[in-house]
Formats: sequence, C-alpha cells, structure tokens
Amino acid sequence: MKVGVLFSGGKDSALAAILLSPFAQIELVTMSFGIVPNDAASVARVLGFPHVTINLDKNLATASVEAMVKDGYPNRAINLVHRVALEHAAARYQIVADGTRRDDRVPLLNAHEARSLEDRSGSNYVRPLLGFGRRIIDALASDHLEFVSGEGVSFDYEVELRAAMDRSHGSKTVAAVFPVKHAQSRVTGRKNIVFKRGCVNSY
Amino acid sequence: MKVGVLFSGGKDSALAAILLSPFAQIELVTMSFGIVPNDAASVARVLGFPHVTINLDKNLATASVEAMVKDGYPNRAINLVHRVALEHAAARYQIVADGTRRDDRVPLLNAHEARSLEDRSGSNYVRPLLGFGRRIIDALASDHLEFVSGEGVSFDYEVELRAAMDRSHGSKTVAAVFPVKHAQSRVTGRKNIVFKRGCVNSY
Repeated sequence: MKVGVLFSGGKDSALAAILLSPFAQIELVTMSFGIVPNDAASVARVLGFPHVTINLDKNLATASVEAMVKDGYPNRAINLVHRVALEHAAARYQIVADGTRRDDRVPLLNAHEARSLEDRSGSNYVRPLLGFGRRIIDALASDHLEFVSGEGVSFDYEVELRAAMDRSHGSKTVAAVFPVKHAQSRVTGRKNIVFKRGCVNSY
Repeated sequence: MKVGVLFSGGKDSALAAILLSPFAQIELVTMSFGIVPNDAASVARVLGFPHVTINLDKNLATASVEAMVKDGYPNRAINLVHRVALEHAAARYQIVADGTRRDDRVPLLNAHEARSLEDRSGSNYVRPLLGFGRRIIDALASDHLEFVSGEGVSFDYEVELRAAMDRSHGSKTVAAVFPVKHAQSRVTGRKNIVFKRGCVNSY
C-alpha cells in the first residue's frame, strides 16, 4: 500500500512516516502557499523518502489570515487549512497520513470528522501518532531522528500564515493572534535506518 | 524500548504488536480470570513474540458480572476491567500498549483518561491502532495475518465474563446483556515476517 504523508519537515510528521515505512510505501507531501521559501524536499532526502509539493491556493491563505484576525486566535483557521490540505492529499492518495498526536490540540480532527473525511473522499486517513503521548514520541524521535527545535524552523501552514499576516497586518497583530511561542522542529538527520527488530529473522 | 502489549489472540492486538515491532522489543501480555481455558500463548508463538499471562482477581469478574446485570449492558464493566488490566500491565512495563482502534467504542479511554493512567502509573500508554480506521486495519491484517473470525474465539475479558455470567445467571441473562454478536478473531498465522520495506537499505 502507498501512503501520502503530510510533511512539514518537523519531527512529528517524519516520525509518522517512519512508523508506517515498514508496512507501506511512503511518499512525503508538503503543502505550500508559496509565501515562505520551502526546503522540505531536502529534509525528505535526508529521511530517504520520495517527496512532492502540493500548492495551496493563496486566496485560502488570505481568507485564513482574515479569519484569524477576526477570531483573535489561530485555531479555527489552522484547522480549516488542515482539512483543505487533507482533502487535496485524499484526491491524490488512497491512503493519507499526518503527524497529529494524542496531545495535540490544533490541527486535530475528532473521530467523527476523520470518518467523514474518509466517507467524502473515498480515501483512508491514518494518524500513526494519535495513540502516542508526548514522552514516548520524544523517545522515538530521539531513537530515530536528529533535529533542531525553534520557532519557524518547520514548513507548516502556521509559518506561512504568520508571514502573510505580518505582511498584511504587521507584527503587532501577529503577536496578538499568536501570543504563545509555537514549538517547532526541523529534521536534520535520520538514525537507525536498519531497524533493530523486524528485519532480523529471529521470530 | 520494551513494550508489554495486551493480547487477546485476536487480530487487533496482534496487529498493534506487529506495528510496534520494528521499533521496540515486544512482549505479549494476556490477562486472564482463569474462567475459560486460554491458549493465547500458542497464538503468541505463531506470531513469534514472547508471551506472559497475568492473572486477574476472580472477585473482579464476579463484581463485573453483577455490574453488567444491574446495568443491563456490558460497556461500563468492560471499560472498568480494561482499566484494571492496563494498571496491572503498567506496574510491570514502562510502556504498555493495546489494540484499541479509532472506531472502537468499548473498551476505549479518551485522551484525558489515557494521560491520567500515565500520570498515575508513571508508565506510557500507547495505542498503535488508535489513528487507523476499519478499512485500513482490515487491509493491514490481511497483509500480515491469517485468522479465523467468530464469536468467542479470542481470549478477551468479554468471553470470560460471559462465561461467568452464564454460570451464575444463566444463558437468558447473557443474551439480554449481550444482544449483539461481538465479532472476534483468532490469529492462526503470520505473513510477511520480513517486511517489504524498511529492512532493505534502499533509502
């Protein structure tokens, strides 16, 4: 089975791909508004997976920025953009995955919304990290990845939408809508490519 | 990392173990009240994973049967037994996993209850199938497992609690409390032990 994994260059989406990789053919998919230069393809090469970029409509970015400014917080618009991204991916892949985790708040579809996406698109939506808590994800990331952390280092919607908001509304509006620093990461290397178990015929 | 995977002999718990196996050392753990003979150890051998049985207190079975009869439906008691089973496993393993899926209703902890279990026990609780829908689980099971389906073929709490209820309250009560046939499965073989990808150094 072939899976299109939504990929921001960060450790969560990389780990989602790695967890699926013994069981499926992986293709990493980065969604981009084209607002911020995007080097996700070279991060994908580091991981050893094929990569494609899907362009999102810039009008969606503009509308999302307006919605965030109107709401005063980003969650609703980020969730909307994530749904659009999943629908784009579902039009291309029979199986779509992402790196959303149990302890994430945004973007996160509930079980009903996940089933609804599957029913509407005919594709399957898989979240390999949904059953994993923060500690165990950190342990797996440390086992399998090298990465740097910081604000704005990954290639996700939020980075692009913040940049768009900065241009149209200025940095004070950005600081008001995004009061909390968003922890992001960018993968710089992969460890343990030959899995410790599963590959050995020791069953 | 070593993971204790709650194991009923059915395809979901087997698949949960297989999905984790390239990344962790697996030990299958079957919980038993000792009410129904349990051959989970030989199913574990078929899968190629080490196996242990943890005995649950028969008083818990008796109390659960009474709760089910009083409620008129099994869900609350099944969830309670599952929590006790997870707590037993968390006392033994730093990482505990089970085969609960996105589309399961019972037993299923919500994200808050999962974090609470982790906080109380100090262990990690992992659900590899939580982000997977029914269709994709069926496809993975068909890729990796041979199994038979039917009522009562697996070694889970429900089978034992039904047997206990049958003895103490009779078959009419069992039929009233469990009106819907519960689809169960028992693994009979494993396919594709050498994973198609992940093992080859084709990155």
